Amino acid sequence: MKSIETCISPDLINLHDLVNKTVVVVDIFRASSTMVAALSNGVKTIIPVRDLDECKTYKKEGWLIAGERDGKQAKGFDLGNSPIAYLNQAYAGKNLAMTTTNGTRAISLARGQAAEVLIGSFLNLQATVDYLQNSTNDVLVLCAGWKGKFNIEDSLFAGALSHSLGWKHDCDATLTMESLYQQINGGLREFLQKASHAKRLQNHHLEKDIDFCLQLNYFDSVIFLTEEGLKIKHL
Amino acid sequence: MKSIETCISPDLINLHDLVNKTVVVVDIFRASSTMVAALSNGVKTIIPVRDLDECKTYKKEGWLIAGERDGKQAKGFDLGNSPIAYLNQAYAGKNLAMTTTNGTRAISLARGQAAEVLIGSFLNLQATVDYLQNSTNDVLVLCAGWKGKFNIEDSLFAGALSHSLGWKHDCDATLTMESLYQQINGGLREFLQKASHAKRLQNHHLEKDIDFCLQLNYFDSVIFLTEEGLKIKHL
Repeated sequence: MKSIETCISPDLINLHDLVNKTVVVVDIFRASSTMVAALSNGVKTIIPVRDLDECKTYKKEGWLIAGERDGKQAKGFDLGNSPIAYLNQAYAGKNLAMTTTNGTRAISLARGQAAEVLIGSFLNLQATVDYLQNSTNDVLVLCAGWKGKFNIEDSLFAGALSHSLGWKHDCDATLTMESLYQQINGGLREFLQKASHAKRLQNHHLEKDIDFCLQLNYFDSVIFLTEEGLKIKHL
Repeated sequence: MKSIETCISPDLINLHDLVNKTVVVVDIFRASSTMVAALSNGVKTIIPVRDLDECKTYKKEGWLIAGERDGKQAKGFDLGNSPIAYLNQAYAGKNLAMTTTNGTRAISLARGQAAEVLIGSFLNLQATVDYLQNSTNDVLVLCAGWKGKFNIEDSLFAGALSHSLGWKHDCDATLTMESLYQQINGGLREFLQKASHAKRLQNHHLEKDIDFCLQLNYFDSVIFLTEEGLKIKHL
């Protein structure tokens, strides 16, 4: 029987064995939600980049560049970190280089060691579940967190994923978050009002982004990290 | 108004500011429970030591030595890590040097930076709450975890402490664990059956230790780290 475990911070990834595992990277507010939205709306490829300056170099090659730090769009970038900006095929056919406070760092930590890397969000939860059910790999959810700290919405996604998969686990973080997810019983939006990052986004008047990111199964797409960057696979 | 935050792993302590804070170190299974039980039963002082060999050097000075690794008593030590061994004043008047897998490491990380360091457990929850209510310091709960990983019983103590204190917090770990603690509603023992470290102790036939460690307010003592080691203050 396959198993699932949760790494609640990129700073703890060295405590986990990634070999032969499918790593699902999650940064609900907002990088992974934005990546899922962009690729589900026709963006061809996303290259996740850790550094702001490196990300800007892609502009010269005709790429769109998206940059976010501390919740705000970084200066000199075409886009910030809002999933809503990509709706209605607004950037269909484009290539995108993207750097964010937490999400792109988490992706770079998973790269290379795992059997494969997916990008997870509530927006494509069920599609991701369906894909994982048909794979033979064990799963590790890597939560992007906030600057290394535990982050409730990313960890709650791990709980939701575990709940949907119904696999065994011997992982206290998974047990905790699955229990809490069941307790909340669909009231994600209400519960996350109290979360630190939701408050941070509310201070930037980004309530619409919060609401968008918390919709379950808005897209039926699975997002993979390939050698060329992030790509979509429609199920 | 005072605040409370939770550091869910010693490996993340560098992300927290300890200055002017009271740090409550917790390792429910079993180091902090054992320290509380020993000092509440007449042990004079406990020196927490990180290294097995260093701990053994205290033997020559007439101290009791307690050593645990991976849940088992280490070879050549007088005692392991069972709180029950200290009941009925079994070692009253003695000095104790102690090294454990997780707990003593966490204490050494808190030492020196914080305003003061307490040792917390369910056994002395209310006494610790009463002390903290009368202090002017903000509180940081440092969970010992399991070899750096998130650990459910230590984090649940943080939730219990926060619930009892009723202070504000802007900390997702505290929010998560307080929510889960309220959900469990006193059913600690039943819920923790599924926890990874409880299973580990059950494999070593240590169910009695588990039951003992999960008793609320068995002792009315507050445990402090002083320059001479851990000491008790009866309220």
